[in-house]
Amino acid sequence: MFESAELGHKIDKTRYKREVPILREALLDAQTDLLQSRKFPVIILIGGVDCAGKGETVNILNEWMDPRHIETHALRNLTDEELERPPMWRYWRSLPPRGKIGIFLGTWYSAPLIENVYGNISNAELDQRLERIIRFEKMLCDEGALILKFWLHLSKDQQKKRLNSLEKDPGTRWRVTDTDWKHYKLYDRFHQVSERMLRATSSAESPWLIVEGNDPRYRYLTIGTAIHQALRRRLDNHEPPLKEEPFPPITLAIDGVRVLHTVDLTKRLAKKEYETELEQWQGKLNLLSRHKRFHKLSVIVVFEGYDAAGKGGAIRRITQALDARHFRVIPIAAPTEEEQLQPYLWRFWRHLPHAGRFALFDRSWYGRVLVERVEGYCSHADWMRAYGEINDFEEQLVRHNTVVVKFWLAIDRKEQLRRFKEREKISFKRFKITDEDWRNREKWDDYELAVCDMIDRTSTEIAPWTLVEANDKNYARIKVLKTLCARIEAALDRKRK
Amino acid sequence: MFESAELGHKIDKTRYKREVPILREALLDAQTDLLQSRKFPVIILIGGVDCAGKGETVNILNEWMDPRHIETHALRNLTDEELERPPMWRYWRSLPPRGKIGIFLGTWYSAPLIENVYGNISNAELDQRLERIIRFEKMLCDEGALILKFWLHLSKDQQKKRLNSLEKDPGTRWRVTDTDWKHYKLYDRFHQVSERMLRATSSAESPWLIVEGNDPRYRYLTIGTAIHQALRRRLDNHEPPLKEEPFPPITLAIDGVRVLHTVDLTKRLAKKEYETELEQWQGKLNLLSRHKRFHKLSVIVVFEGYDAAGKGGAIRRITQALDARHFRVIPIAAPTEEEQLQPYLWRFWRHLPHAGRFALFDRSWYGRVLVERVEGYCSHADWMRAYGEINDFEEQLVRHNTVVVKFWLAIDRKEQLRRFKEREKISFKRFKITDEDWRNREKWDDYELAVCDMIDRTSTEIAPWTLVEANDKNYARIKVLKTLCARIEAALDRKRK
Repeated sequence: MFESAELGHKIDKTRYKREVPILREALLDAQTDLLQSRKFPVIILIGGVDCAGKGETVNILNEWMDPRHIETHALRNLTDEELERPPMWRYWRSLPPRGKIGIFLGTWYSAPLIENVYGNISNAELDQRLERIIRFEKMLCDEGALILKFWLHLSKDQQKKRLNSLEKDPGTRWRVTDTDWKHYKLYDRFHQVSERMLRATSSAESPWLIVEGNDPRYRYLTIGTAIHQALRRRLDNHEPPLKEEPFPPITLAIDGVRVLHTVDLTKRLAKKEYETELEQWQGKLNLLSRHKRFHKLSVIVVFEGYDAAGKGGAIRRITQALDARHFRVIPIAAPTEEEQLQPYLWRFWRHLPHAGRFALFDRSWYGRVLVERVEGYCSHADWMRAYGEINDFEEQLVRHNTVVVKFWLAIDRKEQLRRFKEREKISFKRFKITDEDWRNREKWDDYELAVCDMIDRTSTEIAPWTLVEANDKNYARIKVLKTLCARIEAALDRKRK
Repeated sequence: MFESAELGHKIDKTRYKREVPILREALLDAQTDLLQSRKFPVIILIGGVDCAGKGETVNILNEWMDPRHIETHALRNLTDEELERPPMWRYWRSLPPRGKIGIFLGTWYSAPLIENVYGNISNAELDQRLERIIRFEKMLCDEGALILKFWLHLSKDQQKKRLNSLEKDPGTRWRVTDTDWKHYKLYDRFHQVSERMLRATSSAESPWLIVEGNDPRYRYLTIGTAIHQALRRRLDNHEPPLKEEPFPPITLAIDGVRVLHTVDLTKRLAKKEYETELEQWQGKLNLLSRHKRFHKLSVIVVFEGYDAAGKGGAIRRITQALDARHFRVIPIAAPTEEEQLQPYLWRFWRHLPHAGRFALFDRSWYGRVLVERVEGYCSHADWMRAYGEINDFEEQLVRHNTVVVKFWLAIDRKEQLRRFKEREKISFKRFKITDEDWRNREKWDDYELAVCDMIDRTSTEIAPWTLVEANDKNYARIKVLKTLCARIEAALDRKRK
């Protein structure tokens, strides 16, 4: 979920200086139109990791727009007045009226997050609180509000570095409190709970935009651009309350750095090493599949990747290690007639493995947000809701002791072309290459966006995506086997406890 | 919530015999159209109190329609196959394909309800489970399914009578199990948890229809009619997935008996008694308001009723008993300009009382589902979502130690006319009667429907409606004072624990 916000996004000074004046003018224009039309209120929430620049961001927004029509609320402890009313009263009385912008630092998300991390409320209570927030925000959206939620993220390393550097500088030392260090020590727990929280509360009408907080210029430009786009979109739309995402469907990476670009496709494994490692990991996998606690688990492995990325070959390297009675390979193509009469996920539910078994999906339910999205086989609304449905689905699997392992086999366009041509040459591989493959290749960019979105929205702590450097098949196959073994081993370990 | 299903609804034999053949034909027609068009699947859930006739209802539906295209699932304990998969697997594999009808007895609601009543899962865990159900049903609706949820209700007395009579008859004795009696003993708890569950899961797309289960003819005809209407509505609608309620907005009371009709408007209180009681209850209220634990509470009293029902007079009888510093009367008329720029509920949030204080609302947030609905001041979707928003609002109040007391002052048309005329005669009352009052009177029936709907959907265990027989002002005022005292006393008692 945070993958795209740990890429070291940066904007250089020149570009920043060039773009900020343009953005400011556009923001001011939008703000003026908002004020004059009084069409809707704008509620901006700024949350995130400590020291990720939340306060500075709010300052910049006030500087860039007309602060007379922005109400900033930095809500901390409850006042006496507030304590005598229900907890949401403080937010109700701070809501901006139509035409104005309200920025909230310290939002209705803060309390449930911290209370759960501190162990004061259970996970079920957290979900209950989040559910109430969802209903509250839904009501605001139904009443016409535009809600923009930003989450400033720092990796653990980045946070440590920032805390240290703030502390070193006498001018900023005061900003680092004991609580900040305490929270830093709880980083992993915060990470885990925030992920759950952001996932649960990213509704279609008010999704979170996760922004890497490390580089101020990147942070400001990203948030400013997102606010401007969302404002403009709603202002120019003449139909009352849009039931669409305020942000464009893809994560706004204004510096053009996408998570898929971080995959180092030069990684190789020589044939000899490959053969040694293959034997080693296949042996390991076989042992794991016969482990005395393995009957308490089931394993679902998902393979996705561009055409000719090597999904089939990787799957065969797994099945070679397993007893044929203990796995099924499920190739996913167009749905059958019977499947078409059922809800989208039905055709995957029917293939869920028994306890103690493997199900290997050659393509999967992710088709909805990949091919169906790119080719327009389903509506925008359909694939947008699919992220949440898929997360719900996988959560049910994991809760039921299923190890869900998801591989994206990454190759580049050049390698794909080489493999296509190779396939055309070798007669027994020729059936593998069709006109459709060539057509899909044309849409490489659309697919890349869809893949990045998919990873951002469905790589969860319980069912993460593994990006596999697959330009070299040897390297890819070993990484798949190693990852699979590690995930099963970890699950078996948890079962011991 | 169950008020309308405890009215002793009945259908006589003659009417039943006349209507059933017509309904059966219509149902069969709809079923055929469904099958041929394959437009959507129909999922019918039959839940409710033990022995309320769930099984018989399913039998009747199979008899009335073509059973070859109905799949009935009476799911009990999990099978071995099912235990090896996530809990929802059993439902996924039982989903009817488009064109078919699936009837579920023993639904995804059974387990969370029973586990919470038995104390095996907390309220937060119940909410979490219900939330997953909501998402599951939303996904089904988004995929085009028509979900019809029926809850067969019996009052505690009715259930006891049914259990006894089944047990007396040797032919049906086998149907009454120890579990049935055990559940009967837990009736109040089941009642409370079911209410919470039905309220939480009555979404716009798949609301519950609560049906009084006592009279079989009423039960069958109500459910059959509702299924037919919902099927026909969706079949005849050419736009894909309707985002509207499958049932008409008002509770389907096919025998014409509405909860407002049960109010006995002949109740009277003689002047002398009134004066004695008034002194007694005002004294009591004053004492309660000065109780040593009263500062832990706040009290919100809502007055709704037709024009001239006596809201103002009843309010004055309360305020006479209180210290002027401790209450505020909030008359609700059209929203101010400032209020119009905010979400609907904002203007009520701003008037929430301090701890230890009273807020008396002369008309209230219920205007949304009464005057705004009837006069068309807001859209259908707006007032439909208001029920849920209001319940959420009141739940927050109650959780924050607010006693929410809601009065509907019921008068009949004749009495209203008498009061209108009286007001016109008495000069100092003349300002109270306007052309609008006469206009509203024309829409008496529309208002009555809206009131019944309001009571069904917003009379909750935590914030119930009290229907006040108000043709006689004396009687009404005393009932209001008594009810208010009782509610405050109960809340003070709970605070002692």
